[in-house]
Amino acid sequence: MSRIVTVAAAQLGPIARDEPRAAVVARMIALMREAAERSADLVVYPELALTTFFPRWLLDDAEADAFFEAEMPGPETRPLFDEAAALGVGFHLGYAELTREEGETRRFNTAILVDKAGAVVGKYRKVHLPGHAEHEPEREFQHLEKRYFEVGNLGFPVWEALGGRVGMLICNDRRWPEAFRVLGLQGVELVLIGYNTPTLNGLAFEPPHRRAFHNHLSMQAGAYQNGAWVVGVAKAGREEGVDMLGGSAIVSPNGEIVAQARSVDDEVIVAACDLDDGAFLKSSTFNFAAHRRTEHYGLIVETTGLVLPRGKAP
Amino acid sequence: MSRIVTVAAAQLGPIARDEPRAAVVARMIALMREAAERSADLVVYPELALTTFFPRWLLDDAEADAFFEAEMPGPETRPLFDEAAALGVGFHLGYAELTREEGETRRFNTAILVDKAGAVVGKYRKVHLPGHAEHEPEREFQHLEKRYFEVGNLGFPVWEALGGRVGMLICNDRRWPEAFRVLGLQGVELVLIGYNTPTLNGLAFEPPHRRAFHNHLSMQAGAYQNGAWVVGVAKAGREEGVDMLGGSAIVSPNGEIVAQARSVDDEVIVAACDLDDGAFLKSSTFNFAAHRRTEHYGLIVETTGLVLPRGKAP
Repeated sequence: MSRIVTVAAAQLGPIARDEPRAAVVARMIALMREAAERSADLVVYPELALTTFFPRWLLDDAEADAFFEAEMPGPETRPLFDEAAALGVGFHLGYAELTREEGETRRFNTAILVDKAGAVVGKYRKVHLPGHAEHEPEREFQHLEKRYFEVGNLGFPVWEALGGRVGMLICNDRRWPEAFRVLGLQGVELVLIGYNTPTLNGLAFEPPHRRAFHNHLSMQAGAYQNGAWVVGVAKAGREEGVDMLGGSAIVSPNGEIVAQARSVDDEVIVAACDLDDGAFLKSSTFNFAAHRRTEHYGLIVETTGLVLPRGKAP
Repeated sequence: MSRIVTVAAAQLGPIARDEPRAAVVARMIALMREAAERSADLVVYPELALTTFFPRWLLDDAEADAFFEAEMPGPETRPLFDEAAALGVGFHLGYAELTREEGETRRFNTAILVDKAGAVVGKYRKVHLPGHAEHEPEREFQHLEKRYFEVGNLGFPVWEALGGRVGMLICNDRRWPEAFRVLGLQGVELVLIGYNTPTLNGLAFEPPHRRAFHNHLSMQAGAYQNGAWVVGVAKAGREEGVDMLGGSAIVSPNGEIVAQARSVDDEVIVAACDLDDGAFLKSSTFNFAAHRRTEHYGLIVETTGLVLPRGKAP
């Protein structure tokens, strides 16, 4: 069986606050058709792909819930599943998930993996929620992910899918080597990541070139240090007055960007990803069983925040 | 008190197998004087700075032990300490350490931090030993670190020194985000790293440009993801027939290379490192207390090697 998975990163340009789901899904289907024409096995969409990035506003409950999906697929997303099954491509979709669990209404920033037959084979809920929970008027725009979403409760699973081992992260997760490593320890070969990242920090000035660099640096390091393909897909461009990073990229297990979006609009980039490309690193530099020293890693799980320096004079 | 530490990375070119310690120390003192003229507070030397990189050969015990230091300072390294105290600079030195502990002779790949008064204020012993323990004749050259050294037994400490928080890693440690994170959780602001990295893999072909990229990628990611300066210092050039990576670099807490060696020979590069440059990242994106989710990181310490994928169908 071939170990090559042809992956399409389907970057989305801005989505207006009042843009209906049907219009967004139509844009996504156009990208999916282009991807299928270019022989894609898998189409990867951004985080919260179906709507504008609503955490930039303080909303009342009803306003916020309008951006959530109570079923997946639902009436408005069903065409995406139908088209994928007709074309014989799998896809990865990020969306705001409204669900009932343990007798309570719960909200997560979620991504799913759908196979070529249209079945949902994996679900991930974002763990590293950035931003803040309360309105912060000093910000140029809000980043209220900690208000609208609960921390994901599914861990960082890896699925056997598409002939390989596939994991998912969402946006800010990509900056955390812990997240990549938990996938790596399950032998991940392909990591799918959608993101919505403002070009400017809403709280303090950070130069845009540096924020774009951090985006790629994080994904390139995560790829290399785990010998896995990484597919990072942006919601890009000027959305409701806020510039969002583009730079969607397909990164090889060596950390090298092998395809990158040229625009900040709807755009498909494609790469034939040989899942065996990470095998050499996994068996040499990153042969975990041979080289990791967990007896010295305890602090990573023993503390969430800082501890005092532990160095003593010899 | 100023938070600017002017750091010199003192790259060394090749050291011949028969080059006496005194000759190497004379080269190091020349670099130290240049660094002091350029206002350095701290001079950072490579891993195993005093000799050739001897793990490339299979040696008998006496041959190997000749590359180790039984005292630090000893007669041959004392001039380095004296010169540093006279110039009022601190330094970081990597060397092969032969010691008696718990009634046994022990060998470590070690680095020390020496303050401006010439006192050893910190000692680190390399944790992530690369390579192999037995002779592997299929290799173009050996990488017998697992034969000559024990795994470091001091953890990854951070010291209060030079007006900031200083940590040390050695060579292959830099590829492991776990190592950087344990330093980061102690609030590290400056990470000192020496390395000896062949330009080619001795076992299989890896293109040299990729190995150079991995070197920088690892240090840049470690810097950014912990908001710390990273100083990476090579033993460079063609040493005993093996090409060694140069690319010594001083990396800002944003992951940007702000100074880089231009040669593969003895060379000093200098940067004024404001330890507060990482403060914004430490208080925002990498505010660990606010954003880390240790309940999902357990696998990092629960397993050394791979586990089976844990994903289930939703």
